Amino acid sequence: MSKNTKVNAAILIIGNEILSGRTQDTNTSTLATWLNTLGVNVNEVRIIPDVEKTITDTLNLLRKENNYVFTTGGIGPTHDDITAASVAKAFGLKYEIHKEAFKILETYYKPGEFNEGRQKMVWMPENAELILNPTSGAPGFSVKNVFCLPGVPSILKSMLGGLKNKIVGGDPILSLTISLRTVESEIASSLTRVQDDNKDVEIGSYPFFHAGKLGVSIVIRSENQSKIDDCKSQIQKFIKEKKLEVVDR
Amino acid sequence: MSKNTKVNAAILIIGNEILSGRTQDTNTSTLATWLNTLGVNVNEVRIIPDVEKTITDTLNLLRKENNYVFTTGGIGPTHDDITAASVAKAFGLKYEIHKEAFKILETYYKPGEFNEGRQKMVWMPENAELILNPTSGAPGFSVKNVFCLPGVPSILKSMLGGLKNKIVGGDPILSLTISLRTVESEIASSLTRVQDDNKDVEIGSYPFFHAGKLGVSIVIRSENQSKIDDCKSQIQKFIKEKKLEVVDR
Repeated sequence: MSKNTKVNAAILIIGNEILSGRTQDTNTSTLATWLNTLGVNVNEVRIIPDVEKTITDTLNLLRKENNYVFTTGGIGPTHDDITAASVAKAFGLKYEIHKEAFKILETYYKPGEFNEGRQKMVWMPENAELILNPTSGAPGFSVKNVFCLPGVPSILKSMLGGLKNKIVGGDPILSLTISLRTVESEIASSLTRVQDDNKDVEIGSYPFFHAGKLGVSIVIRSENQSKIDDCKSQIQKFIKEKKLEVVDR
Repeated sequence: MSKNTKVNAAILIIGNEILSGRTQDTNTSTLATWLNTLGVNVNEVRIIPDVEKTITDTLNLLRKENNYVFTTGGIGPTHDDITAASVAKAFGLKYEIHKEAFKILETYYKPGEFNEGRQKMVWMPENAELILNPTSGAPGFSVKNVFCLPGVPSILKSMLGGLKNKIVGGDPILSLTISLRTVESEIASSLTRVQDDNKDVEIGSYPFFHAGKLGVSIVIRSENQSKIDDCKSQIQKFIKEKKLEVVDR
């Protein structure tokens, strides 16, 4: 990849259990952190229900607007797992038994245990590429730029290692955090000036409560280390002027 | 509201810190759980960056497609807090000092402390209705069916009580959870039959790991208690046949 290439991804969380509030999504944070280390910027995240038309419509939009789409959820053995069938439909591909996946699960389970429910997990869009699952056997899959992962966080995490070589990122997104014992309103105008002077750097300000005390983390993000360093010096200048305490966080 | 009215909402999480993976969103789960108790179903969630055009475009779409939209994030005092200005733009309203909000913060802060940064927090779309903030003073606001809340989870939570009377829900969404010491593939085909016989009930199946053991939670959701009870009996029937252990979860 050439210099200053931006590579973007969308994350599509599929599951009624997230929309009902019953389950707290943690996959967004896992995937976004991992994608950042590969130089892939997450453009947007959508959380949608287990409804085929919603999945196909959303997927067909996101896969055109982003270099990559990562879906989570809906690839298990039960009736509400409709991601694989929906992805096949979105791409206009046959939904069929994936021979390699079948072999993997036939070997994974004890004789007689590879039952009807489990066999549903080897139905995939035709010619899907497998994403191996070191935790629980049943693989995820990819079709073109769409990567389908399970919803269970520990299983999803265990599958990322095997995916790394399939993702071509841009310049890594570097970041620097400076945390201060202050409140946002104290630094707002100084920080605005730094942002105005460095329009191509992303500067965020995030209040926190930690160990009973208030603070603010300033996060500087860019593909360019020297631009981060420039912002850092400007921020350190107003920290000194305002006699603010820098804290470890 | 008449019987069987469905009331829908979208949640719009605004913030680069969620998309970078740095911050784990928990507001979705808080808002969705709360909305369910009011009889409001969450249709979709989107997480988008602090970019004005993205905010206005997404908001203008979601507010037409849903009875309510709840935004979180971007209403603080710093340069990256652009939600209020973006909402004004989306509705074609002036962005101006909200007199009531000004008075609240003028009283909230000690003399001399209501500085430039803090004054930014009273700029809102014209005629916005305030959402009072019992934690840290600075109010959220609503414009028509769009409710704008802060990103800090503890502050957001403290503001929901004051919002309750402004939201008109439909029939409450009832749910029942049955948790079993089993794996999904064991119950998949039986559960499919229950779902096929009860197409207007939402039945979800969610594997869990707890205290070192695998299990599955079956969640039945409907506005109609007797439909939930019907599904429950059918599920209890196959639990008995398969001699599965019901667990507390």
